[in-house]
Formats: sequence, structure tokens, C-alpha cells
Amino acid sequence: MPSTIPRVVIDRLPVYSRMLALLERQGRQVVSSQEMGEELGVTPAQIRKDLSYFGRFGKQGRGYNVQRLGEELRTILGLDRQWTMTLVGVGDLGRAILSYRGFSLEGFRIVSAFDCDPVVVGEKVGDVLVRDVSELPSLLRRRPVDIGIVAVPASAAQDVIDRLARCGVKAILNYAPISPRVPPEVRVRHIEPVLTLQSMTHYLKECNRAKPS
Amino acid sequence: MPSTIPRVVIDRLPVYSRMLALLERQGRQVVSSQEMGEELGVTPAQIRKDLSYFGRFGKQGRGYNVQRLGEELRTILGLDRQWTMTLVGVGDLGRAILSYRGFSLEGFRIVSAFDCDPVVVGEKVGDVLVRDVSELPSLLRRRPVDIGIVAVPASAAQDVIDRLARCGVKAILNYAPISPRVPPEVRVRHIEPVLTLQSMTHYLKECNRAKPS
Repeated sequence: MPSTIPRVVIDRLPVYSRMLALLERQGRQVVSSQEMGEELGVTPAQIRKDLSYFGRFGKQGRGYNVQRLGEELRTILGLDRQWTMTLVGVGDLGRAILSYRGFSLEGFRIVSAFDCDPVVVGEKVGDVLVRDVSELPSLLRRRPVDIGIVAVPASAAQDVIDRLARCGVKAILNYAPISPRVPPEVRVRHIEPVLTLQSMTHYLKECNRAKPS
Repeated sequence: MPSTIPRVVIDRLPVYSRMLALLERQGRQVVSSQEMGEELGVTPAQIRKDLSYFGRFGKQGRGYNVQRLGEELRTILGLDRQWTMTLVGVGDLGRAILSYRGFSLEGFRIVSAFDCDPVVVGEKVGDVLVRDVSELPSLLRRRPVDIGIVAVPASAAQDVIDRLARCGVKAILNYAPISPRVPPEVRVRHIEPVLTLQSMTHYLKECNRAKPS
């Protein structure tokens, strides 16, 4: 049954889950799809429809039980366990990623890191030792990870993603500005600030045009 | 006419634009929707439909003129000009953002930066001086920007976004893990690695379940 959930729905669940965790910390017990919708900028109907894939959490007119819905979503998303990650590329961005506590707070732990720059290899960033990228296959055999983070320049990214895929990594978080080719069993998600900026400039242009001159 | 283009289409154009720029650098003159689709992992029909919003670029069976289509998309997206940005939050992430050359290479220039930590304020990162966040309104009045980048902790992000909106910033790139409230005229896009990771863990869970034990 879970495999029939549309990917766009799965993509929205983490946002619901985050909001529910916040409400729970605030001591809230019940929340309506109306309130969730207003807070998240989507329609209550969409929230009800998305959550309907997972059975009946709410009672008509009574709202959702914050704790129970939060737990269910965490279980569905697999957030009730730890996930291990490896980082490839320890430049400025890689360092920021290694020192970002938001990952481990949410159960995503970076357990190894690789670079090809001899100046960086051997350094410890936080409590992770940076290894030469040639050691990637042997280390991932000894210590497999769930997710690979790619923070290398665009020119090196496809090669790094190929290596991770060959080592059996099934999910990749890609910070490099490329559209990589991957085997069908590998999921890639992209963090692309430039593309994200470029999707707002059309709107800014329209704003400027509408301004009285 | 441009205001009737669905937002999901606008969101996909930067990817097409990036691919066309790459093909142009490789000296390619013509590309088919088939090839673009294969490269980007979408159907050729979707590419043809998306591009049909902007008039007739291609000829049936002849493919698209790489240079002309690329130029048109850049014009539509407003990528044929420079955009100025301010950064709020100069921690590890903020520093990585300031030193990332990918922004300026694509015409996005960070012209000012703010933090509230006295240790950081007054420092120069690259060629940008970090100012105290209290100077934000006066500086943005003297030197307005198109886009605000928010790289502060979650607890401070709504306040920073409110300030930027009050200063007339119409587009915000938000790295903080919150769903902020903004006035209707302000566009916000989020860079959220944790949410992105969380949208892959459901898939990883399903993979693990399918494994022979």
C-alpha cells in the first residue's frame, strides 16, 4: 500500500511532520486541517487528502490528534530511526554541512567524509576524519551508509555520484549544479540555490514592470 | 501573458536554461525535446508543453535552436541582468554562501551582509563587510536589494524575514527550517536539506523492506 502514495504527497509529509512536532512542543493536543493549511499556505482540502492516504487520523469537525498524527507520520517517513550519511567534498560548503547540527538533531548522522585535496585529507572536521576519495569503496564496504551527500564542484559530481551508486548508496543529496544520471534504484534530491533563485527572478521582473515609474 | 504561466512551469525553466547553456558551451546547435527529456528525466511531451507557453521555438521534427531557445528562456526568467542580494546570518552556512562563486557566476551578487554577533560584525568576508542587523533598514534604504538570503537559526528567522519584507525585499531565499508567514507580495523559496532528506527516507525504508534478509 505505501508504494501507491504519490511522490508529491510523500514530499509534503515532512512539512506536516515538522509542524506537528512544533505544536507538540507547544503542548497542543488537537489541530484542524484549516489551521495547518493556514500555517503552511496550502488548502485544508489538500491536507485532508494527503493524510487520507494513511488511514483515518482525524474525526470530522474534531481535528487531528497532534501527538498521534505526528508519530504516525514519523513512522511512515522512517523518522523513528537514525540514518547514516557520508559526505563527499569538504570545501566551504562541505564544512558548513559537517558543522550543521540540524542534521543530527533530526536523526541524520554524517559518519564519514571524503575529499581529493591532500591539504584537507587527514583533517578532522568536528568528529569526522576527512579521507581520500580513493578510500570510498573500501570504507563504505566496512561501514555502509544510507545516504550520500555530494558537495563537490559540478565537474566532479557525476563521477562522485557514480561511485556512490556503485557502492550501493540508494539515496543522494546533491548540492552540485548538475542533472546527474543515476541507476533507477537510486533516488537523488537536489539542493540548488541558484536554480531556486532563478525561479524567483521571473516574478521579480513582473513586480518591477508593474511598478509606477 | 507571462502572468498566466503556471508556477510549476516557471520552476522548471531554470533547469532547461541550464541544460541549454551547457549544450551551447559544447557547440551544439539543435536539441530535440526527446534528448532534453532523457537528460533531465522528464517526458518530451512535458518539455514541449512547458515551452509552448512561450510561443513556437521548435519546428516539428527539427528540434529546438539551442542558442535562440536559451536566450529566450534567460530573457523570460530575467537572467539577462544582474540581481543584488543581502545575506542575513554569517555563521558557518552564511560564510559558505558568501564564498560560493556559483551565485555571482550566474548574475546573483551579494552586496551586503548582516549578523547580530559582535564578534562577526565588522569582519570582511570576501569583499563584503558584515554589519550589525540593526543597520539593515538604513542600509537597504540607501542600497536596495532584489533578494534577501536568510541563514539565521530557526528561532530568529521569522523576525529577520519580517524585517526584510518591511524594507521592501520582494524575494527571499530561506535556509532556516521554518514555514514563515509573509505578506502576499513577497515570494519565499526554501532551501531545506533536512526536509529533503526526510522525503527520501520513506523510499529507503521501502528498499530495506524489499531486501532479502
